[in-house]
Amino acid sequence: MDYTLLNGIDSPADLRRLPRTELQKVADELRAYVLESVSQTGGHLGSNLGTVELTVALHYVFNTPEDRLVWDVGHQTYPHKVLTGRRDRMGSLRQLGGISGFPRRDESVYDTFGTGHSSTSISAAHGMAMAAKLKGENRKAVAIIGDGSMTAGMAFEALNNAGVAHGGLLGDVLVILNDNDMSISPPVGALNKYLARLMSGSIYTAAREGAKSVLKNTPLYEFARKFEEHTKGMVVPGTIFEEFGFNYVGPIDGHDLDSLVPTLENLRDKKGPQFLHIVTKKGAGYKLAEADPVKYHAAAGKFDPAVGFVKPATPGKTTFTQVFGEWLCDMAEADSRLVGITPAMREGSGMVEFHKRFPQRYHDVGIAEQHSVTFAAGLACEGIKPVVAIYSTFLQRAYDQLVHDVAIQNLPVLFALDRAGLVGADGATHAGNYDIAYTRCIPNMAVLTPADEDECRQALYTGFMHDGPVTVRYPRGAGAGITPVKQMTAQAWGKGEVRRESHNSGQRIAILAFGTLLYPALEVAERLDATVANMRFVKPLDAELVAELARTHDALVTVEDGCVMGGAGSAVAEALNAAGITVPVLQLGLPDEFVEHGDPAKLMSLCGLDAAGIEASIVKRFGAKPTVVRSTAAR
Amino acid sequence: MDYTLLNGIDSPADLRRLPRTELQKVADELRAYVLESVSQTGGHLGSNLGTVELTVALHYVFNTPEDRLVWDVGHQTYPHKVLTGRRDRMGSLRQLGGISGFPRRDESVYDTFGTGHSSTSISAAHGMAMAAKLKGENRKAVAIIGDGSMTAGMAFEALNNAGVAHGGLLGDVLVILNDNDMSISPPVGALNKYLARLMSGSIYTAAREGAKSVLKNTPLYEFARKFEEHTKGMVVPGTIFEEFGFNYVGPIDGHDLDSLVPTLENLRDKKGPQFLHIVTKKGAGYKLAEADPVKYHAAAGKFDPAVGFVKPATPGKTTFTQVFGEWLCDMAEADSRLVGITPAMREGSGMVEFHKRFPQRYHDVGIAEQHSVTFAAGLACEGIKPVVAIYSTFLQRAYDQLVHDVAIQNLPVLFALDRAGLVGADGATHAGNYDIAYTRCIPNMAVLTPADEDECRQALYTGFMHDGPVTVRYPRGAGAGITPVKQMTAQAWGKGEVRRESHNSGQRIAILAFGTLLYPALEVAERLDATVANMRFVKPLDAELVAELARTHDALVTVEDGCVMGGAGSAVAEALNAAGITVPVLQLGLPDEFVEHGDPAKLMSLCGLDAAGIEASIVKRFGAKPTVVRSTAAR
Repeated sequence: MDYTLLNGIDSPADLRRLPRTELQKVADELRAYVLESVSQTGGHLGSNLGTVELTVALHYVFNTPEDRLVWDVGHQTYPHKVLTGRRDRMGSLRQLGGISGFPRRDESVYDTFGTGHSSTSISAAHGMAMAAKLKGENRKAVAIIGDGSMTAGMAFEALNNAGVAHGGLLGDVLVILNDNDMSISPPVGALNKYLARLMSGSIYTAAREGAKSVLKNTPLYEFARKFEEHTKGMVVPGTIFEEFGFNYVGPIDGHDLDSLVPTLENLRDKKGPQFLHIVTKKGAGYKLAEADPVKYHAAAGKFDPAVGFVKPATPGKTTFTQVFGEWLCDMAEADSRLVGITPAMREGSGMVEFHKRFPQRYHDVGIAEQHSVTFAAGLACEGIKPVVAIYSTFLQRAYDQLVHDVAIQNLPVLFALDRAGLVGADGATHAGNYDIAYTRCIPNMAVLTPADEDECRQALYTGFMHDGPVTVRYPRGAGAGITPVKQMTAQAWGKGEVRRESHNSGQRIAILAFGTLLYPALEVAERLDATVANMRFVKPLDAELVAELARTHDALVTVEDGCVMGGAGSAVAEALNAAGITVPVLQLGLPDEFVEHGDPAKLMSLCGLDAAGIEASIVKRFGAKPTVVRSTAAR
Repeated sequence: MDYTLLNGIDSPADLRRLPRTELQKVADELRAYVLESVSQTGGHLGSNLGTVELTVALHYVFNTPEDRLVWDVGHQTYPHKVLTGRRDRMGSLRQLGGISGFPRRDESVYDTFGTGHSSTSISAAHGMAMAAKLKGENRKAVAIIGDGSMTAGMAFEALNNAGVAHGGLLGDVLVILNDNDMSISPPVGALNKYLARLMSGSIYTAAREGAKSVLKNTPLYEFARKFEEHTKGMVVPGTIFEEFGFNYVGPIDGHDLDSLVPTLENLRDKKGPQFLHIVTKKGAGYKLAEADPVKYHAAAGKFDPAVGFVKPATPGKTTFTQVFGEWLCDMAEADSRLVGITPAMREGSGMVEFHKRFPQRYHDVGIAEQHSVTFAAGLACEGIKPVVAIYSTFLQRAYDQLVHDVAIQNLPVLFALDRAGLVGADGATHAGNYDIAYTRCIPNMAVLTPADEDECRQALYTGFMHDGPVTVRYPRGAGAGITPVKQMTAQAWGKGEVRRESHNSGQRIAILAFGTLLYPALEVAERLDATVANMRFVKPLDAELVAELARTHDALVTVEDGCVMGGAGSAVAEALNAAGITVPVLQLGLPDEFVEHGDPAKLMSLCGLDAAGIEASIVKRFGAKPTVVRSTAAR
């Protein structure tokens, strides 16, 4: 396809100069461009194909960037990026130094609010709308939110707040519900059913209008009209969005520019909270994606659009996610008390097979992290053994529930924390850097950091058998490639193990590794002849082992793929301080900055957390290759 | 009043043996008992007087503890405690070693789920209901939730999940909405308006029934009936609770046992999700509390029921909350960009005066911590300077929003963190022990710990002027009593100050104090002749000062009223490790356990954080009264 029109659009102002009749052609070119572009870089696909017409209509009708568009989640902003001056940078999407897969305030003035996690858009748009009121500025704030994101409580908190006046001021906020009957996993919950009913309701509206014209010349007509008027004034039979104070319009076809443009023009000129319900199709215009929206949610890498996604001929390495999924099924088989819970991440968390085999013990609660954790607590009170599968970054959404409902009551809930540490292409919003710090400070919590695939399986088993709250954290993708032993064996609680003994007669260094960085640590240790401990537990920490290593070494090095601030290394420092042991400690981990998107291995290298970086840090701090000073016998 | 009936009730089984006709008398005695009891101990009042009949009816109708009652928030459980065998322990309420002001699983088998924070009850009850299904047990789970708690998104997440079947299983959960048109502050938001409409709607239902009988003998009647039936089947004009899959009943009078008992009996025998809307009055039966429910929400201490709450003749010491409230007004006066935000804690956070003086710049968003933080982020994007006043324990509810919406975008939002550290009578659920650990690990965050009232005012100013996210944390109640200087002066960013220099020629100890424990630290330093630094900033930490103190002293002691794990002391340890400095460090702070309710000073003493405790810890670790070893000149 040639991109005749698209090539002339370097900003929404260019788009707005086009005649209305050209918009469909722009949309067609845009859709083709996005498909071609994602087929080269990988990235989110279905949601972007689904919002092409909406994006065109929004930038055509609204005076962006003066009017503010806030895209919920933000993985559907590729068409928006193309129309707002980033067409030529799409080839660098989600790569180191390239543009982000999400809106970013520092990337474009058209990206008014950074997103990544779901359900924040109405809150942010309400803030912008109230700011405009306070400053006497006449602009609109528009939140575009999917039906999946709408299930999160936060969206309701925002509706509840934005639908009423504050100090006499009512914000000009427009919420566009992009109803595609899909979050990343198929939809669940009551709200989804309700939206489906709303759609059938709109058909009814047409039928009712028809009935009226039939009645028109009968004496019943006037009664019917009055009855309806009367009931409308009294019974409040509006949509739930009207109950929240919004003017509800819809549902309309979100791929039909002839509906979208005039409706948006109409809503643009209205004051106060407006709500537009549009219906779109994920993957629209690309048959393969329309047919299987779950599969075509995102492309892992390049693909041929004519062929679609194909399974690689040789299967990839087993991921930690798969290790979890297999363990979950085996454990469920062995213990009928197990219930698995996911907040809308069945595929991402490796629970498809579990869902199939144990449907009654599987709970997808929707994008509802807070509820997922307290629901688990309720189950645990009754002797059920809940396993909450959740990304490290999303557990941040349920932090209080972890403290207040699980930890204070010391309930046996196992948290399988996937995507711990850096996550790569998704960037800073999805980083799982903080969980060690924010979980270990909570009393009663146990924090396990398995070093490889087999350790992960055994740690999950160990955590499951423990009578209290436990997190088992593991990173995105594959690890050292240690095939899990089928037999489940509990690890010694709160105990690490020495994996390599230094025979260095000079400066003796012990590396205390937490998690998968054990393997680069072992490499480094070979070169520097250092001791290496696989600590396994951040909490309860093996304080005896720490003390023993401190006694028998000249320096300790802690290594973790979590933030240094408050992390596992600090747990070691605390243990040493508590024991009154003074020894040089070098803490290696993720820096105190937000690490951007890019290839995970490259990012880890940039953070100095590959073998070369770890070695360089140790050599820099404790001098070059340790020299012979003390005999091994001195131990 | 004599408690003839009440004295015979040692468990709900005793209550259930009474004839139905005696229940009103039980309720009357119970109300009197609760009022008398709270007038002796202090504690929550209005909500408990409002739930007397409900509590009697629930324990009469349901087979507790087999059926599970989950009380949202839980401060309305005094009548429940009296009826479930704790009548004689009410005198120990909220005191050290006494019973808790909230339900506690370890206190009674009738306390099925511990609460304290709001809006968790439906999630927990849904968990219990699903557990019963999985185990084939026939019991009901009942969540009792106020209209204030219902505004939190979490409650909606739970409704969305509990209203549909999972793996073919639909839980037998009953949600009782206790609508008293009040959270702790007066109600806000769209939901509140909706509930008011529902109540008028019930009146309408009666009117409609009347109209029908008028029409009955006209030809229009049949049409009206058919029209209504038809629309009912198509337009789904139910309450929003019905839209979520619940069978909605109500509203009924929650003080009328003749309504409550039969309605509950009816609902007890129904399968699937049930929703009962009752209307009660906070403070019911006690005229003073009915007239001023905000004032009578809770009693600070003893009072004479005949007289009511009286202001103490001599005003108490100025609290940090008051210091914040005054600063907020002064700052708003000086800077028109300031907007103040509270999640339903106008009184608790000291914002009554601000609300009065700056109504357009005041936002009570309801019990909606998540939304409050992202709303602030939206405002900040537009050049507004939001101040979010929130308790340390409640910021846990918005942790992801702090990371994802504020910190990643480095937006200038000031968090005024009240109730940091131990909170006393409210106990473990409300403890503000963790914020230093969970905020300092986030990049871009600044964490300030003012040591007294004047420092608090200046720290708030300093944080407000900073172009990035800041928390200023301060404890419940009063501090050292240092009257704030009216003039606002920015503190040197990231700098501490030495408040006392040791002249000890023996072992030289430096105490690094974070926050209000500076004052006991100064006392101890006088006795031990130690140096004391007022660190002011946990982040950015004054690493230069830390290094300087380490160089010039034999040992460092860190003191903070937050958890040791990951806390300010660990920040000091990290800074030392980063600088390659090895020095003995003693970290003093709150222990790794949940500290129960009780008098704050006593609790701090038990945690070893009063002057005596701090001294004892230092002496124990570093030997008795330091001896002369090194001359002062050596510095």
